[in-house]
Amino acid sequence: MKALVKLSYDPYDAELRQIPDPVPGPGEVVIKVHAAGICGTDMKIYHGQYRPYMTPVVMGHELTGRIAAVGAGVDDLPVGTPVTSRTIFGQCGRCPMCLSGRENLCREKTRIGFQHDGAFAQFIKVRRDQVHRLPDGADLTAAVVTEMFAVVIHALKPVAIKPAHTVLVVGPGPIGLAAAFLAKAEGAAVAVSGLPADGPRLAIAREMGADITIIGGDDADPGLKELMAATGGLGPDVVLECSGTGGGITYGLNLCRCGGRYVQIGTQSAQVTVDFMRIAYKEIVVTGSIGHTRLDWDDVVRFTTRDQERFRPLIRHVFPIDDWRQAFAAAEGKDAAKVVILPNE
Amino acid sequence: MKALVKLSYDPYDAELRQIPDPVPGPGEVVIKVHAAGICGTDMKIYHGQYRPYMTPVVMGHELTGRIAAVGAGVDDLPVGTPVTSRTIFGQCGRCPMCLSGRENLCREKTRIGFQHDGAFAQFIKVRRDQVHRLPDGADLTAAVVTEMFAVVIHALKPVAIKPAHTVLVVGPGPIGLAAAFLAKAEGAAVAVSGLPADGPRLAIAREMGADITIIGGDDADPGLKELMAATGGLGPDVVLECSGTGGGITYGLNLCRCGGRYVQIGTQSAQVTVDFMRIAYKEIVVTGSIGHTRLDWDDVVRFTTRDQERFRPLIRHVFPIDDWRQAFAAAEGKDAAKVVILPNE
Amino acid sequence: MKALVKLSYDPYDAELRQIPDPVPGPGEVVIKVHAAGICGTDMKIYHGQYRPYMTPVVMGHELTGRIAAVGAGVDDLPVGTPVTSRTIFGQCGRCPMCLSGRENLCREKTRIGFQHDGAFAQFIKVRRDQVHRLPDGADLTAAVVTEMFAVVIHALKPVAIKPAHTVLVVGPGPIGLAAAFLAKAEGAAVAVSGLPADGPRLAIAREMGADITIIGGDDADPGLKELMAATGGLGPDVVLECSGTGGGITYGLNLCRCGGRYVQIGTQSAQVTVDFMRIAYKEIVVTGSIGHTRLDWDDVVRFTTRDQERFRPLIRHVFPIDDWRQAFAAAEGKDAAKVVILPNE
Amino acid sequence: MKALVKLSYDPYDAELRQIPDPVPGPGEVVIKVHAAGICGTDMKIYHGQYRPYMTPVVMGHELTGRIAAVGAGVDDLPVGTPVTSRTIFGQCGRCPMCLSGRENLCREKTRIGFQHDGAFAQFIKVRRDQVHRLPDGADLTAAVVTEMFAVVIHALKPVAIKPAHTVLVVGPGPIGLAAAFLAKAEGAAVAVSGLPADGPRLAIAREMGADITIIGGDDADPGLKELMAATGGLGPDVVLECSGTGGGITYGLNLCRCGGRYVQIGTQSAQVTVDFMRIAYKEIVVTGSIGHTRLDWDDVVRFTTRDQERFRPLIRHVFPIDDWRQAFAAAEGKDAAKVVILPNE
Repeated sequence: MKALVKLSYDPYDAELRQIPDPVPGPGEVVIKVHAAGICGTDMKIYHGQYRPYMTPVVMGHELTGRIAAVGAGVDDLPVGTPVTSRTIFGQCGRCPMCLSGRENLCREKTRIGFQHDGAFAQFIKVRRDQVHRLPDGADLTAAVVTEMFAVVIHALKPVAIKPAHTVLVVGPGPIGLAAAFLAKAEGAAVAVSGLPADGPRLAIAREMGADITIIGGDDADPGLKELMAATGGLGPDVVLECSGTGGGITYGLNLCRCGGRYVQIGTQSAQVTVDFMRIAYKEIVVTGSIGHTRLDWDDVVRFTTRDQERFRPLIRHVFPIDDWRQAFAAAEGKDAAKVVILPNE
Repeated sequence: MKALVKLSYDPYDAELRQIPDPVPGPGEVVIKVHAAGICGTDMKIYHGQYRPYMTPVVMGHELTGRIAAVGAGVDDLPVGTPVTSRTIFGQCGRCPMCLSGRENLCREKTRIGFQHDGAFAQFIKVRRDQVHRLPDGADLTAAVVTEMFAVVIHALKPVAIKPAHTVLVVGPGPIGLAAAFLAKAEGAAVAVSGLPADGPRLAIAREMGADITIIGGDDADPGLKELMAATGGLGPDVVLECSGTGGGITYGLNLCRCGGRYVQIGTQSAQVTVDFMRIAYKEIVVTGSIGHTRLDWDDVVRFTTRDQERFRPLIRHVFPIDDWRQAFAAAEGKDAAKVVILPNE
Repeated sequence: MKALVKLSYDPYDAELRQIPDPVPGPGEVVIKVHAAGICGTDMKIYHGQYRPYMTPVVMGHELTGRIAAVGAGVDDLPVGTPVTSRTIFGQCGRCPMCLSGRENLCREKTRIGFQHDGAFAQFIKVRRDQVHRLPDGADLTAAVVTEMFAVVIHALKPVAIKPAHTVLVVGPGPIGLAAAFLAKAEGAAVAVSGLPADGPRLAIAREMGADITIIGGDDADPGLKELMAATGGLGPDVVLECSGTGGGITYGLNLCRCGGRYVQIGTQSAQVTVDFMRIAYKEIVVTGSIGHTRLDWDDVVRFTTRDQERFRPLIRHVFPIDDWRQAFAAAEGKDAAKVVILPNE
Repeated sequence: MKALVKLSYDPYDAELRQIPDPVPGPGEVVIKVHAAGICGTDMKIYHGQYRPYMTPVVMGHELTGRIAAVGAGVDDLPVGTPVTSRTIFGQCGRCPMCLSGRENLCREKTRIGFQHDGAFAQFIKVRRDQVHRLPDGADLTAAVVTEMFAVVIHALKPVAIKPAHTVLVVGPGPIGLAAAFLAKAEGAAVAVSGLPADGPRLAIAREMGADITIIGGDDADPGLKELMAATGGLGPDVVLECSGTGGGITYGLNLCRCGGRYVQIGTQSAQVTVDFMRIAYKEIVVTGSIGHTRLDWDDVVRFTTRDQERFRPLIRHVFPIDDWRQAFAAAEGKDAAKVVILPNE
């Protein structure tokens, strides 16, 4: 089969190859991939900025598709069933995190696209337990948003968002757009901030319901004024930081209201220089979130396969796998939300 | 009366002066100060590193004493009553923070030692409503710890500390020592970390019940090994950061267990470079705390005036006000916990 | 002016009387009442089932209107300004509840329609601080829903309702309908249960967006089956009990999922026989809510004056004050949501 | 081996019998029971007031002992190792409760002494995964308190108990005494209330550190006055209801302060008549707790095997298994805390 393989930790050392089709072992299934989304982490792997992962590895961990083959002991997923898959393949099962259903924090967890071959391929092998059915008739391209919504549904689980709240999303990348959409679905007024180059993504935010958009870094920005007016000069009740940059974090902490709520969703590896003391001076409650768990996914599948038209603005860049270089270029640009690869086209 | 006055924002521009005795207005009282504690913020003011405050201002905001005079409308505090005073003198009374009993976050709050003359003086004028009675027979020198315990009681209010928990206190200054003492009182095992120069303060921590002391920055430190062993290799359940430094914050975030709790208590004004992403990667819940409120103080007075012997190790440096320069030098050293000035001796 | 006065604690001892117009004292205002809603508590007072209140008292505590006169010191509310008023007139200001912005729990609180003359009158006198402006152009009849939404906004403040949640509202009276509407606005799927006689109110619930309606007491009810199917057989994630009856409470506790959330909003005075142990056996988190606070009302006014058409189905029974007996009869029936009296028509 | 067997659901249909020694299957171990505690549920089974369980069944689910034999695949528990065992033997592993580490709420859970032979026998077979090592040298009779402390450690996990708090424990049975001890260990002032016949148990409460004891039902009781004085007339900050009776629940809800915390720990099957509306009128936060989970037990073992002398007052009634009828009689009396059976003496 065709597969996009990262060969080493070196930057750009990736190519489309023919590799053997996967064969399901006991308790495993093989999915014929319909659509696979490009995540920011895929770009970091491509650029040699993220590790560890096995080499060579088939990249990609966001997917939809149909069951192509099942291993011994799997009798409830007929060939052709439309499905998606969680990213976590293995976990230790014994640590306090595993024992409390927080396997996303297990130190020994393994994931497709990292320690197991991933989704930028015609077929992928996963454990049966990772698989979630999609409704018959679901649009499998639109449904590729499951994983990104899993990220934000997980992050917002402990946060009480109310219709009276104003939520600021910092960073209009795919995760930020999903966070803004979810906060709107929870009834809040939503502002999304980005950099000057983020115009196209801020336009998508507005199209999907955001009330206010802001170009950060300019104290006279009309969106910022609107945000402050909407909050009686106090600042947003909730900040969802989705940029993962020192500038974004400080922007969010500075604007967050006294006694407000701040959630770190965007990530990167390096240390950052931030105005950390705002957490104390304003008694902000900060939580952080990484990935998602088994229990998040039933919610995710229900949410993302209902009224799929809602998610259309997120997916405007779709490429056959042969054009993966264009797809990656689009994912690095500032005008796309979720870029999708179709490995079987 | 004698009073230690900071004359301007310039560093070290302070001196002991004779100024008029304060006269209580309606709803106010004058306290004859028995003991006044030196806080880290006093040192920042002295060094010209903190603002705003009025100039000239009598410094100091931690005190015990006895009622010396009362203004119109105050009929429940006889002259001679032993008391302490909260630091917040004024607040707007209308903002959401004031309306929810969080006046420590009011943007218009004013404090003794900042916008009103403070406690390094023979007498101080405060509003009657700021005053809390101390029990007859209380040791008024030992009772000067009220304010520092108000800080940590406020900070730990939303944190469920359990006997099964191991709590790490970063920074063995007066606030850190109070935090360690309170965490012990809540049943936890407690580790306190400091810098190599902090030996004397770590000794006080042990004397007051800390189970483990650690010299930070050394991965082979035996205290660190003990902490990790005590937590099954997971790291502390709760981190109470009391140093307010970038190094201390990163140390605390790095050690805090997955899914753990981190409280920022130490403060400073500058931006810091920290490993902020640990909050996301480990899903740490972070809260910050600044000052204290009206409602904290009934708890504080009850806690700090019971069995006062417990607090003895915190107060070993007591100076008459004429020796304020020696007192300030002691407060800057690394071998004192709370340094106390006696303005009437 | 005309006013509906309850003369004693005796049942039905109420009549429409001519009484002197109120005169505002310092810090007070007089509102010309446009619309006043009938609350369940008004009915209890009428039936002699609730106390204490002063006698005689003008009944009613839900209102909108326009400023008619202001007392000394009130200079920011011109005559004619459209307003609503909170119900709490007086509070002690010193208890822990007052000091933390929970004046609804102050033992000394007083309210319009109870210890002060209320809203079923052409004019009402309140403190300026109780008054909240309504937007110019607001529909003052539709805006009478402010108080009932204040009840449910207060009750749901600590509850994180999510799009993946299914919320069960027990009891389709006015408060239940408001709770259902708010839960929908927070993104959840909503079921509303009632008694067989509640058909008309359940129809209003559906009209306002409820996904499922249930006739309680019948294990074969199709709505119940739908609820259980929607929750994978687990039961609702959140129960909002708005009936205040033993039957309703037990129904809610029995259906609530393991580890779910239950909120007691409906009230009555008597002891009830309930399956309390479900709270332990299913580890349900139960909170209760009564009234509302100063801080709730900014949210309430914003929410209820935006897109007022949404609230139309709640108000279909409007009576001039002369017809107050018909209004009370309608409020006791099972086919009305909020019954409104217009004191100046 | 000797074993105390309940033969049917009939009251009192129990007898000491010789039955075959258990043989460990793969992943299982056999423990030679040193001590087994009598729980309230054992008494309900004996009286025919609790179901379901298999018949016949060896009763008992609180135990300590030493490994006597291990099944295939168990290589880390040498014969002779001192151990205790959790009560849950089986769980479905797939429901949301299992997946979030709350197997105590799994509908398919099975337990020793209920669906599997229990601890009132010379030997018991459990899964290896249920077993927790005790320290070498631990007093295995005193260590039988593990299970009852697991109950209260689980119940108090989400409750922030502070030194400034006053905690009321309702019901001085074994669980109530353990709850009082734990609340003291968390730094609070503790009051324990009981019935007039509970004098001996209230004496144990005082011996173990309770500050106040109360005979319920008497408004003039000096302990009650002391409790109210200690809380400034507000009532206890936290109520731990351990009686499971309608009277105890109403007593606790009535005394609990406004905005306080109430935890239902005591259980029974029947409906109860209670003043449920206090939850709304005082905005009390109520949680309930049943059993304990895998994750609780590491904490439990650490807590209960440290300084075992502390738990001595709880165990004053120890019987060889031949005297099980006297043991059961003692457990029903009002002067014992934990009654222990030694099956091998």
